[in-house]
Order: sequence, then structure tokens, then C-alpha cells
Amino acid sequence: MHPSVLGGASLLIAWQLKDKHVLIVGGGDVASGRIESVLAADARVTIISPSSGLHPLAKQYIEGSYPITYHDRTFGGAEDLSGVDMVLTAIDDVSQSRTICALCRDLKIPVNVADIPDSCDFFFGSQIRDGPLQILVSTNGQSPKLANIIKRKIEKHLPEHAGNAIAAVGRLRTLLKERAPGVGGEVSKRRMKWMVDVCNSWDMEELAQLDEQTMKKLLDAGWENGTVPNPRDLGMRWKWPTNVSTAINTAVPALTFVAGAACASILLLSRLSRSR
Amino acid sequence: MHPSVLGGASLLIAWQLKDKHVLIVGGGDVASGRIESVLAADARVTIISPSSGLHPLAKQYIEGSYPITYHDRTFGGAEDLSGVDMVLTAIDDVSQSRTICALCRDLKIPVNVADIPDSCDFFFGSQIRDGPLQILVSTNGQSPKLANIIKRKIEKHLPEHAGNAIAAVGRLRTLLKERAPGVGGEVSKRRMKWMVDVCNSWDMEELAQLDEQTMKKLLDAGWENGTVPNPRDLGMRWKWPTNVSTAINTAVPALTFVAGAACASILLLSRLSRSR
Repeated sequence: MHPSVLGGASLLIAWQLKDKHVLIVGGGDVASGRIESVLAADARVTIISPSSGLHPLAKQYIEGSYPITYHDRTFGGAEDLSGVDMVLTAIDDVSQSRTICALCRDLKIPVNVADIPDSCDFFFGSQIRDGPLQILVSTNGQSPKLANIIKRKIEKHLPEHAGNAIAAVGRLRTLLKERAPGVGGEVSKRRMKWMVDVCNSWDMEELAQLDEQTMKKLLDAGWENGTVPNPRDLGMRWKWPTNVSTAINTAVPALTFVAGAACASILLLSRLSRSR
Repeated sequence: MHPSVLGGASLLIAWQLKDKHVLIVGGGDVASGRIESVLAADARVTIISPSSGLHPLAKQYIEGSYPITYHDRTFGGAEDLSGVDMVLTAIDDVSQSRTICALCRDLKIPVNVADIPDSCDFFFGSQIRDGPLQILVSTNGQSPKLANIIKRKIEKHLPEHAGNAIAAVGRLRTLLKERAPGVGGEVSKRRMKWMVDVCNSWDMEELAQLDEQTMKKLLDAGWENGTVPNPRDLGMRWKWPTNVSTAINTAVPALTFVAGAACASILLLSRLSRSR
């Protein structure tokens, strides 16, 4: 990015909630989406909302076997924030929302108040998830609908098996660290370079097929010799059919050419046979 | 997302840094990237790093006209964290990094320590920016390289003018709020529904071309009557050439067909003329 175009952005980050305590005030449709997002990030959740206002999805989470504590009431004050690491509110009461935000800021608890941008330390956006792969599309509050449209376009063009490929590469990296341990320094740089070479040499489908045994072969033949062998050399075969759209993209021009040739031939031959 | 696949993710968010104070400890290549990211989000920045270790890009930022305070020294202790809203460290000294992290957690300051996952409240990922549009690709620490590869694939397939379209829709929404003010309730829902209809009816290129005058026409003819007029009906013309790749995609099959027909004709005619 050129320095002259700096400014106007948010800092997009992947916040860690494992074993953190998130308070959600509200139980409507927006709150339901929030519950899902924080459960996906392994948070412990407390929900405060009168049961009369619970969305069916929120109800489903509360009644399911999730790490959720539920209070059937409205927000009670600062004591509800004790031991809380993050607060998300989605209620219609604007003045109550502002009160909660002020308390959170005093206590330095990150807070998001739905629909009140200046009471938000952070915003949400449209999200994609495929195993360890997560993608956030943010329009910086300008157009949630376009964020959603762009998200769907991205989904359509995501490499197949991207999530599996990432999981496999993560596992390969762990095995490599066991084989060549050490933090920082030369070994760290060599490991990083070799992993980059693997990701650049193999395509997403090939990486996604790496099983534990092939990883061992790859480390034996590749890491130990400072090279990246071809997947075929390690005896890998296709588990998945090759990308169908690639096959079609290759076949269509050929078939179109043949169709043109056939049409012209039929036309010419029929005319010539008639003219003879 | 089905509840059964919850877990294992991060919470992807767009953190707000406007007028917030970010401390960056370190001045190498990783730190340089961090400086750029937080300046893009309108933060005030303090950099602590001995000048001997400064990357040319970090130096360029420090010497440029950015809201940066620079200290030519190593981290000095808790007093360096006074008034700080976020801390990012990228230094080789692992024990120093852990000390900074512990201080931040005591003070409830969000912290990211490069290369030490358990000292991070949040992670970074590969990012795309086009004006108000920002996209984060995270592999949850499994493979930064694949995050980068996927980012480049997404970039290639992003709708043209997406950033301009989002900016225009954001402006249209502001104008609509001026025309039909009010927070919450019926008017808010009607506004949201109409904006969604506009985004669904017009394509990205058309939205990107909306100027102030056409927005007024769109509000007069559309909002006031509860409809979404066609861009042509508002007298819009193409400022940009139509998407070149779409044109090529349409023309190629036709040309291939013609080429097939031509080849077959030439072949047939030459054979026939010889055989006569």
C-alpha cells in the first residue's frame, strides 16, 4: 500500500476467544448470529435477555449442550461485567446500550453495540469459513449488503479443498518442527523457506491429499535433501476427481472448433452433392 | 454454520483505531508491516526500537509526516505502556516479548507478539484493501503462505470497482438518512430494505458510477415511490468500458466456431478441387 493512501481503514484481526468469557446482551436475530460466532471461537458465553424476546436460534443454543450461562432478565449493571472479556449487545434500548458501552470502556472490556457505530471498539462483517480457513469481508460499515454479495462471489471462486489443504500444511509444519526443532535463528528460517517452497510447488488439491504417511515421505525425500519432490514421485494418486470446471474449460473450445468444422463440412458437402 | 461444526475458529473483526494509541516494539520487516496496518487505520503510533535495527520501510515512516513518536532504544518497562490502547511487538528477544505480554495482560491492553501464538490476544492475516472494502484471509496460524496464495486468488476474482460501489452506496445511505431520518423502528427497517433492493437490482459497475446528482434522482424516483428504477431510466451511461474479460468470454466461443468452420471449408474445398 502506498503511504499516501493510508487512512480510513480498520485493523482486521482474528481475535482469540478460546476459554474467554463473552457476555451477550440481547437474544434476537442479531444476538443469535453473535452467539454462533463466539461459540465457533470456543468462548464461554453468558446471555442476558428476557425469554420473551428470544429468537428460536438463540433458544436452540441456550437449550443445547454449549458452554452457555443464561439469565432470563435485562442487563443489571456493572456486576454483570465481572470476569467478562468481551461484551456484545444487540438490544433495541439505545440508552441502555450506551450505559453498557460506558461501563465497558471504564473496565477496558472490548465492546460492540449493534447499530451504534460510535459505541463499538470493533465491527463485524460477512464471513466465510472452511475448516481452519476464515475470511472476513468488511465494508467499514458502508454497506453490509454489498459485503454479503462480495462474500458470495468470493465463495464461488475459492479453491476447492482450501480448508483441507491448510489443515494438511499445518500438520506438516508440526511434523517438521518435531524433526528440526528450535525457535528463531537459522533453523527457523530454513523451515519457513521449505514450507513456502512446498506451498508454491504443490497445488491446493495435492496439498489437501497429504496423509501422515506421505508427509513422512515428503520430509524424508524433501526436507532432508533441501528439495520439494513431485507428488507423483511420492506415489500419490488422485482421491478426488480433477477439477471439473478446469476440464470443461479445456474441452469447450475444442468441441466448439469441432462443431464449427462439422457444420461447415455438412453444409459444404450437401451443397456440393446437390450441385454435382 | 451447523452447530456441530462450531469450535476451532477465531472471531474475525474490524478493530477501530481512529485516534487510538498503538505501541509498536521493534523496527524490522515485521514491525514495518504493522506500522503500515495501524497507520491505515488512523492510529497514533509510538515506535520503540534501537535505530540500528530499523528496516528501511520503518525508517521511511518515522521520517515521513505521520502521527508517529519514535524512541531510539529498547523497551523500558510498564511506564512505556501508559495511555497505550494496543501493543504489537516484533523483536527477536523472546523473554523480553513475554515480559511485555504479561504487563499488557495486567493492564488489559490487547497485545500481539509476533511468532509467539500464546502471547497473542489476536492474530493478523493476509489482507486486501480497495477503498472502504477490506478483506482478511486467516488460516488460524496454520499456513501464512497459503493465506497469501488464497488472497491473491480472491484479488483476481474481486468484482471490478467494488470499492467505488461500496463508497457510493455508503453515500447514498447517508443521503437517504437525511431524507428519512430516525433511529430504529419502521423507518429504519424500510430504509434498510430499500438499500438492499438497490444493491440487489444494480450491478457493481452501475453502483460505482452513482454520482451525487443521480443519487438524488434515484431517491426521488425510487425511495419516494418504494421502487428501484433501472440505471438507464435515470439517464446513466457507461463511464468505464464494459468489462473486457466478459467481452472476451463471449467472443472466444464464436470465433472458435468460425475458425473451425473456416478450416474445414478450406480443407474440404482444396481436396474437392484436387479430386475433380
